This record gives sequence, structure tokens and C-alpha cells, in this order.
Amino acid sequence: MTSEHETGRLLGVGVGPGDPELVTLKAVRAIEEADVVAHFAKPGHASRARAIVEPHLPPGIEELALKFPATGDTSKGKPADRSAIAKFYDEAAATIAQHLDADQTVAVIAAGDPLFYGSYMHLHVRLSRRYPTEIIAGVTGMAGGWAEAAMPMAQGDDVFTVLPASLAGDELERRLADSNAAVVIKLGRHLAKVRKSLATTGQLARAIYVERGTMAGARIMQLVDKKDDRAPDAAIVLIPGWETREDDR
Amino acid sequence: MTSEHETGRLLGVGVGPGDPELVTLKAVRAIEEADVVAHFAKPGHASRARAIVEPHLPPGIEELALKFPATGDTSKGKPADRSAIAKFYDEAAATIAQHLDADQTVAVIAAGDPLFYGSYMHLHVRLSRRYPTEIIAGVTGMAGGWAEAAMPMAQGDDVFTVLPASLAGDELERRLADSNAAVVIKLGRHLAKVRKSLATTGQLARAIYVERGTMAGARIMQLVDKKDDRAPDAAIVLIPGWETREDDR
Repeated sequence: MTSEHETGRLLGVGVGPGDPELVTLKAVRAIEEADVVAHFAKPGHASRARAIVEPHLPPGIEELALKFPATGDTSKGKPADRSAIAKFYDEAAATIAQHLDADQTVAVIAAGDPLFYGSYMHLHVRLSRRYPTEIIAGVTGMAGGWAEAAMPMAQGDDVFTVLPASLAGDELERRLADSNAAVVIKLGRHLAKVRKSLATTGQLARAIYVERGTMAGARIMQLVDKKDDRAPDAAIVLIPGWETREDDR
Repeated sequence: MTSEHETGRLLGVGVGPGDPELVTLKAVRAIEEADVVAHFAKPGHASRARAIVEPHLPPGIEELALKFPATGDTSKGKPADRSAIAKFYDEAAATIAQHLDADQTVAVIAAGDPLFYGSYMHLHVRLSRRYPTEIIAGVTGMAGGWAEAAMPMAQGDDVFTVLPASLAGDELERRLADSNAAVVIKLGRHLAKVRKSLATTGQLARAIYVERGTMAGARIMQLVDKKDDRAPDAAIVLIPGWETREDDR
């Protein structure tokens, strides 16, 4: 962390998996003390992070909505899309820098944890060397999911793996078979493939589907009970490890 | 979750990585509303979870201290040790069950997240089918560590792996080389081996050593700057993934 004194501070604030009560005391304080609260939103969607902290936003607080350009799936973007996204992050960072230069503290709120598969990091790498920066860790979406399912995930000598659903099917299978516990993230259009991989590794029966984490409208069920292969981008599948290891209990 | 009505509720409450402000609003409320707050402690140590929530404990709240027997390293315990630990969990569960049967709500507090490498799970598997049970997710120790280090961990298509330090050196090397980002947990007496594995995979230069998370007395440094191989059981090493992948920024 840098320690300049003539600018505001950049705060990367994790606001947890969805339930406004799963926000930390530190995040609430950061939001209350910030001059500006910034949040990302995908085209056609309200900001998930903003919805989570809405009960905690001070009346009249200045907000900065960072709206992604409409380029589709950014994780597998074509070069043109990737360049549009990079330009968007450059511009978002420049806008935030203006506030920081004006001695305003900017809290960028992030669903889950800001440094774990989140958009905040794109601002962090652009700004944190130039401005005093603090990160406030948050409860991840996956932890919210396994808490709702009340399902022990990993224990003792378990190897735990997080796998993006965009991996090729054989790569998913290899890595699932090589893990005691796993979470497959960013399901979107990949659910049929993920289901097939889990059937191949023998893990389908214990897989749990989690949609919208701990938000209103959350859906948590055994994956075998989900009859279609439609899933939002942010949906995940949990493959608990520990419940199958009687010897460690 | 069961829904009986003639007993108290069992709450598994994550209290985060160490900073009392990284406790969630929901955890604070659970502690305030519970009839009994239970916590584990290792021989010769005060409960870490209790230290974290001490500022939030209502005056006069009934506490139940669950003290592990002195059997050394439980993750690699000899059969006799493992049986002593199992007996300890059986007795702890029976004590908690007495409170639940008396219609008292028992909050078992857990550092980090209760279902992710934590002792609470041993109570959960013994009690959650018999009593109404709720889990409150917490910020993990590792998320507290990478927040303190302000280090982006995983992004986009990264594969993220959690590896217990007790794994054999060649197994550590194979899995580290096969991950974009990783955390090695439960360092204890294994730090020299972990350091050697990271040197072999070429990841030593970016590894970060984290001791005592976000607690008072926390130590966070580049692993190459740590001159000895002594580490507490709960210390971890972070191997950030994303910072090395310029193309995704």
C-alpha cells in the first residue's frame, strides 16, 4: 500500500454473497465514510453489489455507476471485445482517479471478495500504485452457497479446487477427479458440459447447484434435481469433499 | 436444514480472519441472540474465534469452551490420537446437545468460515440431522491475507487450488505447477518443504507468507524475505495467479 497524503483513498470493498447481513462491519463503515461509492453493472442488469449494500447506503451518498459495454461473454471475448473491455476499464479508472485527485475517498463495492474473480481487480492494477489503497475482504459467493446448503466442503488434508466452467470437458474431468472438493464457477452456457464431466468422474450425485447465492430469489438444489441446463453466468456448482470421508470425522 | 420446534437451534457462525471488524452483521446478531456461545481452543492456546468476537460478546453471555485434548498434530494423528480426537468431538457434541434439548440456541463460533477446513464441521456432522441448524458464512483466513497484501489472487479462467502443506513434496510440486493461483494452508513444520516445492515450480518469487491473518500481530511478507522456516500451524502461503497474466487486464 502506498501512503501519499494529497489524494483520497481507493477502497476495494467486498460486500459478500448477497444477503445484506453478510456484509462485514468494516465494509459498512467504509461505505458510510466514503465520499463516493462506485459499482459495476453489466448491460441490462442493476449492480448486484449495489443491491446488496442498498440498506447500508447513506442517504444522498454520491454514486458512480460503471456500466460495462455490451460485448457479450468477456472471459472468452474476441480480440475486439477484449479491447473494448480494456478501454472501459481504462476510462473507469480515469474517472475514479479524478475523484481521488480531488481528495475524495472512493469505495468500489464488489459482490463476494474483491480480489477473487472480481471486476474490481481491473481497477486495482490500474490505480493501486498511484493512490493509497485498502482492500476489505468479503464473504465469497461460494461460501454463501455452501452455508445455505449447510454442506461441509473441505477438511483436514483435502485438496480444494476452483474451476471455471469454460475449461474444456476433458480438462474439467481431469481436475475434478484430482480434487477432494471443488467448485465450478461461471456456469452460464456451460452447464450441460459440466454435468457430463461430473457424471464421468462419479461426482454428479453429490453436486449442488447454486444460483443467486444468498440473494432474494436464490435457488439451491441437488444438481440431479435440476431438469434443464439453463444457468446464469454467476451460477456455481459445489462438489463437497469431506462428507465422503468417514475416517476423518 | 431440519425444522423441529421443541429444541434450540445450532448455529455455525463464521467470524472471519481475525479483525473484529471483518465479522458480518449476521454473525454479530447471532452472537447477541444466542443463549450459549461455544468455541474450540487448542491446548495451551486461547480460542482464536473467541478473541475475534470478544468486542461483540454480550456481557454475561454463557460460554462453552471446548478444549482439545493434547494429542499433537491432529491432521496426521496416529490411530490412538485420532480416536482421542473423535471421542473429544463426541463429548463436545453431547454437551451441546444438552443445551439444545433445553431449548437453548448455541452459536459455535469459528475463525474464518465454518465449513471450510474448520473444527465446527465435526459438530455439524454429529448434530445437524437431529437439530435445526443454520450456517453463517464467514470471510476466510486466506481472503483476509490477500486483502492485507492487496494482491489480486484469481481472475477470468484461472484455476485456483488450496493445498494442505502436509502433502508430499512431489505432489505439492505437481499441483502447484498445474494451478494458476494457489494457497498452501496449515504450514506448521512443513515450510521448508513448501519453499523447496515453490522454488522447483518457479513460483517462489511471487509467494507471500501470511501469519495470524488480520489479527493483532499479523505478519505478511514476501516468502523470500522470511529467513527461517518456523511457522505456526495456521500460517499460509499465497501464490497469486492473476498478476502474471498481462493479457487479461
